[in-house]
Amino acid sequence: MKKSLLLASIAAAFSTAAFADEGMWMPQQLPQVAKQLKADGLQLDPSTLTKLTEFPMGAIVSLGGCSASFVSPQGLVITNHHCAYGSISHNSTPEHNYLANGFLAKTTADELPAAPGSRVFVTTDVSNVSQKVISKSVAKLTGKARVDAIEKNQKDLVAACEKDAGTRCTVSSYYGGLEFYLIKQLEIRDVRLVHAPAEGVGKFGGDTDNWMWPRHTGDYSFLRAYVGKDGKPADFSKDNVPYVPKHYLRLASQALKEGDFVMVTGYPGRTNRHRLPSEISATFDWAYPAFVKASGEQLAIIAKETSGNEDLKLKYASQVAGINNYYKNRQGMLDSYAGSDILPRKDKQLAELKAWVNADPKRKAEYANDIVLVEQQMAERDAQAKNDFLVNYSTPRLLGVASRLLRFSHEFEKADIDRKMGYQEHDLARFKSGVEGLDRSYDEKVDKALVLNFLKQYLAHPKDQRNANFDAALHLRDGMSEADLSSTIDALYASSKLGSKEERSAWIGKKPADFNASTDGFIKAAVAMYDENIKREERDNELAGKIQQSYANYMKAKIAYMNSLGQAVYPDANSTLRVTFGKVAGREMGADGTSWTAFTTLRGVSAKNTGSGEFNAPAAQIAAINEFNQNALKTGSYGKYGDAKLKSVPVNFLATLDITGGNSGSAALNAKGELVGLAFDGTLDSIISDWDYNVKNSRSIQVDLRYILWEMANVDHADNLLKELNVK
Amino acid sequence: MKKSLLLASIAAAFSTAAFADEGMWMPQQLPQVAKQLKADGLQLDPSTLTKLTEFPMGAIVSLGGCSASFVSPQGLVITNHHCAYGSISHNSTPEHNYLANGFLAKTTADELPAAPGSRVFVTTDVSNVSQKVISKSVAKLTGKARVDAIEKNQKDLVAACEKDAGTRCTVSSYYGGLEFYLIKQLEIRDVRLVHAPAEGVGKFGGDTDNWMWPRHTGDYSFLRAYVGKDGKPADFSKDNVPYVPKHYLRLASQALKEGDFVMVTGYPGRTNRHRLPSEISATFDWAYPAFVKASGEQLAIIAKETSGNEDLKLKYASQVAGINNYYKNRQGMLDSYAGSDILPRKDKQLAELKAWVNADPKRKAEYANDIVLVEQQMAERDAQAKNDFLVNYSTPRLLGVASRLLRFSHEFEKADIDRKMGYQEHDLARFKSGVEGLDRSYDEKVDKALVLNFLKQYLAHPKDQRNANFDAALHLRDGMSEADLSSTIDALYASSKLGSKEERSAWIGKKPADFNASTDGFIKAAVAMYDENIKREERDNELAGKIQQSYANYMKAKIAYMNSLGQAVYPDANSTLRVTFGKVAGREMGADGTSWTAFTTLRGVSAKNTGSGEFNAPAAQIAAINEFNQNALKTGSYGKYGDAKLKSVPVNFLATLDITGGNSGSAALNAKGELVGLAFDGTLDSIISDWDYNVKNSRSIQVDLRYILWEMANVDHADNLLKELNVK
Repeated sequence: MKKSLLLASIAAAFSTAAFADEGMWMPQQLPQVAKQLKADGLQLDPSTLTKLTEFPMGAIVSLGGCSASFVSPQGLVITNHHCAYGSISHNSTPEHNYLANGFLAKTTADELPAAPGSRVFVTTDVSNVSQKVISKSVAKLTGKARVDAIEKNQKDLVAACEKDAGTRCTVSSYYGGLEFYLIKQLEIRDVRLVHAPAEGVGKFGGDTDNWMWPRHTGDYSFLRAYVGKDGKPADFSKDNVPYVPKHYLRLASQALKEGDFVMVTGYPGRTNRHRLPSEISATFDWAYPAFVKASGEQLAIIAKETSGNEDLKLKYASQVAGINNYYKNRQGMLDSYAGSDILPRKDKQLAELKAWVNADPKRKAEYANDIVLVEQQMAERDAQAKNDFLVNYSTPRLLGVASRLLRFSHEFEKADIDRKMGYQEHDLARFKSGVEGLDRSYDEKVDKALVLNFLKQYLAHPKDQRNANFDAALHLRDGMSEADLSSTIDALYASSKLGSKEERSAWIGKKPADFNASTDGFIKAAVAMYDENIKREERDNELAGKIQQSYANYMKAKIAYMNSLGQAVYPDANSTLRVTFGKVAGREMGADGTSWTAFTTLRGVSAKNTGSGEFNAPAAQIAAINEFNQNALKTGSYGKYGDAKLKSVPVNFLATLDITGGNSGSAALNAKGELVGLAFDGTLDSIISDWDYNVKNSRSIQVDLRYILWEMANVDHADNLLKELNVK
Repeated sequence: MKKSLLLASIAAAFSTAAFADEGMWMPQQLPQVAKQLKADGLQLDPSTLTKLTEFPMGAIVSLGGCSASFVSPQGLVITNHHCAYGSISHNSTPEHNYLANGFLAKTTADELPAAPGSRVFVTTDVSNVSQKVISKSVAKLTGKARVDAIEKNQKDLVAACEKDAGTRCTVSSYYGGLEFYLIKQLEIRDVRLVHAPAEGVGKFGGDTDNWMWPRHTGDYSFLRAYVGKDGKPADFSKDNVPYVPKHYLRLASQALKEGDFVMVTGYPGRTNRHRLPSEISATFDWAYPAFVKASGEQLAIIAKETSGNEDLKLKYASQVAGINNYYKNRQGMLDSYAGSDILPRKDKQLAELKAWVNADPKRKAEYANDIVLVEQQMAERDAQAKNDFLVNYSTPRLLGVASRLLRFSHEFEKADIDRKMGYQEHDLARFKSGVEGLDRSYDEKVDKALVLNFLKQYLAHPKDQRNANFDAALHLRDGMSEADLSSTIDALYASSKLGSKEERSAWIGKKPADFNASTDGFIKAAVAMYDENIKREERDNELAGKIQQSYANYMKAKIAYMNSLGQAVYPDANSTLRVTFGKVAGREMGADGTSWTAFTTLRGVSAKNTGSGEFNAPAAQIAAINEFNQNALKTGSYGKYGDAKLKSVPVNFLATLDITGGNSGSAALNAKGELVGLAFDGTLDSIISDWDYNVKNSRSIQVDLRYILWEMANVDHADNLLKELNVK
C-alpha cells in the first residue's frame, strides 16, 4: 500500500460501526466507543486519545499522503520506507545509490535534505465549522454560486487560521459535505533523511509481495524535522535546529503477541463504504478497468524506455512504484468485486433507505427529491470523467506544469483571499519546489513515449467525443497518421524550453500578459486552452454545487435512518487524523490449503531471498540471520528481539485494523500507547474493504518494531539512533 | 514420493509405538493397538483387519514397489498416476501421447497392456518362519556359511510354497534379521492400463510441487488384473478375462472432514528409525550427499542429451521422474538433518542401551559383545559401499544386463533349489520381460554420456582406490586422457550388439561356454569380471553373515530394553503389508507466516495453473472448474463432490499417517473401511521421519476420492468406470 491517492471528490461517504475492528474514528469520537476500547484491552484512558496535543496523539504527524510519528525529543520521525522512498531516490545517484544500499547519517551533520516539498504536519487543533461553511445564506444557494460561497467561507476560515506563522490550515469535508472541520497544523518544511535500510530490506519482495501475505518487508525509515533557531518552521538552512516535539512515542516495554490489543493512529486517505450503487457500478465496471489497462501500458513503456539506463531508472523508480502499487490494488479490487454481491446488496440498502424515507410524509418531503436527484447528478459527473480520461493520460507533463504556472499568474492578479483554493500565497512554496524538482523524476523521451501511446488511443475516438480545445492546442487532427502525430508531438516538445529548470522557475511570478506573448510551445498550448478550461471548470462547479446540496441531504437521510436502527456512524476517511483499533490476528483463509499465522520471522527472509531482483536481501543481513540461528541453536535463546514461541525475530504481523492508503507509516501502538510497529499495507483481498468492509478477510500488515531494532543493531549498526531511541 | 527404492539391506531396523499416528503395523499386530484404534474412531472390529483374505485387507494389493486396491468385482485396480507412469509412458508415442493427454479405455477391449513386467500381487498368507530360517543348526554357523544356510532355508520355504501355480512366495526379514516371515502372493501377470488423467492433472505441479504442500495433484490411475479363463494367473492373451477378486473396496458413503479417522493399508518400502549412530553418520555425512551430487549430474546430462527430441524425452521420462524424486527426497532429508539433534540423540540412546545391558551380568553376557561387534562390522560395510559407489554409476547399462545374463546362465547349471535367490526359475519371466522392454527406456547416446561423466570422476581416484577387475574389463588405464577414455568407451559400445532386442533376448537360456566364446564387447567384459565378482560376493557374504548374527542380537537387546520400559515395538518397513492409522489434520507450521489446512480445493488448481510446463492444467479442466464456480455462485450448492465448508471440491488432504515410499497408491480408508482417497506423498520436512519420526511435522498427502470422481465425471467423462465403481 502506498501513499494515498489525492483524488478530489466532494462526496466522501460514511460508514457504520456495526463490528468491532471496523471504524476509522475521529479522535473526538472515541468516547462513543470507550466501552469497546476498554473491553478490547486499552490500558490508557480513552479520553486521553481525544486530546491532539497530549500523549500519545501529540506524537502523530502527517507527511502529506503518509503518516508518521515522533520517536525522540530531537524531532526524529519514523515512517515507512515507501513513504521516504522519494527522498531516498532524490538523494541517490549511481555512485551513491542509497536506494540500493541504504543510508545512515551517523551524526545530524550527515543528514540529507529530503525531496523538495517534503513536509511534516503536526495537527494542533480540529474544530467543527459546519455552520460557518454552510451558513444560512449559503444554504439558500445552488449550483456554482453555492460552490463559490462554500469556497469563500473556507478560504476565510483558512486565512484567519493561518495568521499564525508556520501554520497550515485546511477545511475538510465529512459525511459527503454534510459537515466541515477546520484543521490547524504546524507545517515543518525543513525535513531531512536520517536512515533507511537497503531496498533489499525496505522494499523486500517488491511488487511481487506488495499487498501479499506472508510478508517480510522492513518498510521503515527515519526522517528528522528541523526548525529555525526560534523554534518556528523555516526553509532549509544549515543553521536550523532539530524540532522539539511536545510528545514522542516510547518503544514497547513488553513483547507483542497474537491476540494483543493494537491501535493505529494516522491519516487514512479515502474510503467509499456507503457510496451510491451507481457510483459503485461506474467505478468497477468502467473506471478501475480503464485505470488497470492504462497503468499496464505506462509500466511497459517506462520499462522499455528506461531499459539499460540506471540513471533514468532511478528517476522513474518512485513513479513506477506508485503505478505498480495502484495497478495491483485496482486489479485486486476488481477480482474481489467479480465474485461478490456488493452491487445487489447496495441496491437493496438504497431501496430500504428509500422505503424508510417514503414511509413518513415528513421524511419524504425532506429527503425523497434529493435522493432521486443525486443519482442523476452522479451519472452526469461520471460521464464527464469518462470523457476526460484519455485527455489526462495524453497531456505532456510540462503542459500540465505550464497550465498551472498560467493559472497561478491569473490568480495572483487577485487579492489572496479571492484566489482559487490551491493557488493562494500559502500554496506557492510547495508548487515552486515541485516545479524546481521536476528534473529529478522527468525525462523527455519517456514522457513523449507515454503521451504518444495515449494520444493514439484518444485520436481513435470520433471528433465529437474528443475535446476540441485540447485538439486545437496540440494541433491534433482527425485521421492523423502515426508518423504525422509523432512529428507533431516532436515539434511541440522541441518548441518548449520548460525542460530547463531555470526556464520553468522563471515563469513563477510572471503576469498573464507575459504568458500570452510567449512563443514557448507548452506555454502557448496552455494559453490556448485557458479560457475553455475556465468555462469547463465553471460548468463542473455548477454540477458540483448541485451535488453538494443533494448528496449532503441524502447522507443526512442515511445517517438518520441508521441512527434509527441504533447504529453509530463514523465518517469515511478523508486524509484527516483517525484512530482504529483491533487485535493482532492471523486469518483462517490463506492461499488454498493454508491459513495465515499472525507473525512472519527471519526464517522467511532467508527462505525467500534469491540474492537478486525483488528478493535481494543484503549479504550482511543473511549473514546476521545465519549467525542468529546458529546462536539460537547453541544457546536456546532468541536474544533481545527474538520470540521463544516463534523461535526467531518477528518481521511483519497481521492485525484486524481498519486502515487504508494514507495510513502508511502510521504508528501501531499497544494497549499502553507504546510503539510496536508501523502499518504499511493491507492484504490484496481486503482492499475491497475501501468500498465494502469485510471483517473476516481484512487484515492490515505491520512491520514489527523488533525487526526494525534487530536490523538497526545487527545489520546497519545504527547505534547512534538506537541510543537516541533510548534502546538499552 | 515415488516407488520404493529396492535397496538391499540386511539390517532393517525397528521402531516403537510411543505416539499415536506413529507405526506401520503388521496386520497381525493390530489387536495390540485395538484400544487405540477404537478410541481414534475405527468402526470396524480391529480383528477383521488381521485377516488378509477378508474385507478390507483382501482388496489391498502390491504392484511391486507401489500399493494398490481392487475397487470392482471385475478386477479394476486403483493406484497412483505415478505408479502407472511407466505403463502410460510405455504406451505413449508422439502421435498418441497418453502421458500428455490422458487415456481412457471406453470398453475392456480398449484396455492396453501395461509396461512389461507389470504385476499385481495379492497377499494370501503370511506365516512366521523364524525358527525354520534360523534353525538350530544355522544358529551355530557364522559368516558366509550362515548366509548360505539362511538362503538355503529361505529357498526351500519358497520352493515349497510356490508349488501352487501362479503363486509368488518370499521370505522377508523383520527386526533386522531377528524374525522371518513367509509371504505368499498370487502373482497376476496380465495387467492392463484402463484410465489415466492427463499429466497436467496426474502430475500437476511436477517436481516443483513434489513433497510440497499446498498440493493439487490428481495422482490416480486405473489398471485391471486379467487371468486365464481358468481363473489362474497367465501371460497376456486376448482370451484372458478380468480377475474376480475375493474382495474389493467400496467408495466412501459419507463426506470426509478434518479430524476424521483414516487408515492406510499398503506396502511401505523401508524405514530406518532405530539405526545405529554410525549408520546415520555414514548416510547423512557421506551417502546422501554423494547421491545428491550424482543425481544432479544425471539430470543435467539427460536433459542435455534429450533436448529437442520428444521421442528420447519420453524414453527417459520415467527415469527422470525417479531421479528427481529421490534427489529432492535426499536433499530434503539433508536439510532437515542439518538443523537437527538426531545424531547426538541416537548416540545417547545407544549409550543408555549399553548401560542397561552392562548393568546386569546375564544381559551383559548375552548382548554386550555383539553391540560392540556390530558397530565395527557396519563401518566395514560402509567403507565397501563408498568404494563401489562410482563403479555402480560408471557401469554401462548393457554391461549390467550382460552380467545378469551371464549369472543366469551359471545359476541355471544348477538345480533350481540350489540357485542364488533372484536367479531361480520363478525369477526368469520378469527378468526376460525386463531384458526385452529395455529399448523403451534406453538410448545409447544418453547412456554413454552418463557413463563418461562418472568414469572421469572414477578415474581421477588413485589406482589403489579403484576396482582393478572393473578397470581391466573396461580397458581403463591410469592417467587416460579424456579423448582416450571417450574413444575407449565408444569402442566398447560399438563392439556390442546387446542394443538389439533380438540379440539380448537370444542370450537368455545360453550356456556359460557360449558366453565365454562370445566376441560381443559387453558380454566379454561381463565374462572378464565374473570370477572376481563372485569372489567379492563371497567376501560380502562373509561380512553379511557376521552382521546378521550380531545385528539380530543387538536388536533383541534393544527390544528387551524397550519392553522393559513398557513400550511395544513394530518392525521397520520392509515392503510388506502394513496398516497405519491417524487423522485428517492440517499442521501448525507451514511456510513462514502460514499454517497448513487439511484440504486443498479446485480453487488452488485454477490459482496455480499457468497453462504450460509443470502447472499445465488441461483447458477442459479449467473450463469445468469455472463452470463449477459459476454454478456454485448461482445455486449456493457445491454439487455431489463439493464440500460446503470448503466451498469447493476437495483435491488433496493431509493426514497424520505414518507412511513412506512404497505406500504410494495405498488406499486411504475411513472408519468404516471405505475408500476416501489414495496416499501419494509426504511433505518435505517430514521425510526425515524415515529415520526419525516427527509427530509434529509428519503429514502424508492423499488425493481425495471426491476429486478423482469429479474429474472422471466432469473432465474425462469416464462414465463407464463410474458405473463400474457403482457411482450413482
